[in-house]
Amino acid sequence: MSEPQGEDARLAGPLAALWRSAAVRLGAGEDDAAIVRVGGEEVVLTTDALVDGVHFELERAGPEAVAWKALAVNVSDLAAMGAEPLACLAAVVLPREGGAALLEPLLLGLDRAARALGCPLVGGDTNVGPGPLTLALTALGRLGPAGALTRAGARVGDHLSVTGPLGGSRAGRHLAVRPRVAAARALLATGLVHAGMDLSDGLARDLPRLCRASGVCARIDAARLPVHPDALALGGDPVARALGDGEDFELLVAHAPLPPGTQAALAGAGVTLIEVGEVRPREEGLGLLRDGRVEPLPALGHDHFLGA
Amino acid sequence: MSEPQGEDARLAGPLAALWRSAAVRLGAGEDDAAIVRVGGEEVVLTTDALVDGVHFELERAGPEAVAWKALAVNVSDLAAMGAEPLACLAAVVLPREGGAALLEPLLLGLDRAARALGCPLVGGDTNVGPGPLTLALTALGRLGPAGALTRAGARVGDHLSVTGPLGGSRAGRHLAVRPRVAAARALLATGLVHAGMDLSDGLARDLPRLCRASGVCARIDAARLPVHPDALALGGDPVARALGDGEDFELLVAHAPLPPGTQAALAGAGVTLIEVGEVRPREEGLGLLRDGRVEPLPALGHDHFLGA
Repeated sequence: MSEPQGEDARLAGPLAALWRSAAVRLGAGEDDAAIVRVGGEEVVLTTDALVDGVHFELERAGPEAVAWKALAVNVSDLAAMGAEPLACLAAVVLPREGGAALLEPLLLGLDRAARALGCPLVGGDTNVGPGPLTLALTALGRLGPAGALTRAGARVGDHLSVTGPLGGSRAGRHLAVRPRVAAARALLATGLVHAGMDLSDGLARDLPRLCRASGVCARIDAARLPVHPDALALGGDPVARALGDGEDFELLVAHAPLPPGTQAALAGAGVTLIEVGEVRPREEGLGLLRDGRVEPLPALGHDHFLGA
Repeated sequence: MSEPQGEDARLAGPLAALWRSAAVRLGAGEDDAAIVRVGGEEVVLTTDALVDGVHFELERAGPEAVAWKALAVNVSDLAAMGAEPLACLAAVVLPREGGAALLEPLLLGLDRAARALGCPLVGGDTNVGPGPLTLALTALGRLGPAGALTRAGARVGDHLSVTGPLGGSRAGRHLAVRPRVAAARALLATGLVHAGMDLSDGLARDLPRLCRASGVCARIDAARLPVHPDALALGGDPVARALGDGEDFELLVAHAPLPPGTQAALAGAGVTLIEVGEVRPREEGLGLLRDGRVEPLPALGHDHFLGA
């Protein structure tokens, strides 16, 4: 199997050594979000920070679109766990130059996103700093009766599917993130989904994470990859775009074969599910079936640590 | 009464208009932290971001001390609500220059702080950006049987007390923050404490917030203010330092007179409680008793929005 890449490899050791209390069910580096027990409940927690010039261009996008993305990427992490949103917090660092004028549109944008995504803004912190606009959002969620959708649990023979087309998000979709909260709940409710996550850094970088957590490998079928029209419009190899462009924020799930009735029910509930590959034994490595040959899954995708 | 200052005034309108779901008991801008209902439980949530050059000097303090402060200020907000820590998340933006080398010491520092403060690090996000090192921590807590310590509830005639000496924190104490988790719980357990908060921006700036939430005013007795030796060492007016230096992270509480037995029990549990004033009717305004005269409470303290 491919070795952990980028941040994963650098952090694996320190993260594994972190102290955890008995209340921690899933901790740092283990999944899209953490699960913490509070009395008789389990809550899901996640945080993601966005920086102007790295994750968005404030001048092009404007503060409202930035606010939407900042919340939506966190809600996408809740969705990836099968959780429904309960509340969010926003830590905002405004730039010294022109920062004060940004606060109100950012707050309005966050509130608009909070209403649309069902995730009320309940707290925050605002500061002014010498760097670019930075938004660190945290989202709290709650698991449904079907429990958590985790990265661990994929079984050899499972099908791998995604909830929408991939690639080319930087044409604009990377801002208009649509978290797949309802889709994740509907998928969990089938009882046939064994593992899942959201695709933030590109399938080629995220799939190894799901495989590592599940102790398996996988093979992607290039011919079945749903390439987004935005990827085609940007040009270049469409398969590489679908695998590596990142910021799709679709779900990737490993599941047992779905009976036709289940597929129809999901489609009726507005859930798209496109098969892209299958789960394979660990010793096979991560493969890409293309033009009748299996090649190693290319090391594409976004390393948000390196900013590459 | 003094009007809201700085950020408070700028944000009051937009914050009051924020959408909140039925799960939100205390929302943005209302207290030191939010309270959200999850099934049969109530969780406390808070976030605070620290920026190099604004809240610490990385080169002087080093990454471990910075990590301590980043977690401790959040745990202090939990303490201010009477909550006990359950878990924390860290969003870290590393500077491009030399940032990669900071990650491991920061993680180790966060883990050390997590163990000491009983608040395990369960998740996070690391990025590299063009600005200075930024840490946005979020802490999750749980209320005890005595419920929440909120800013609302102070009554005319209440005594105002703090849990330790004030002023001069920038001599070093602002990094070595000691959240008063146990003190808050012990104070709540007396059943005599009506309102409280932690002192992050200086008594002169924080007291108006407690008063506003409670619909009262207050008078501070300059002669009773416990001035920290650090404040004396820094020079200048010691009363102004105690009122305005900020980052003390002691608790401020409004409470009924404590019977001698209660005071002794608190002292036996290691809780210091120093009376500094009393709660007065709203129409009196915020006053400072000094040299036998009552003057308006000076507009000192740290406006973290303006960075002043």
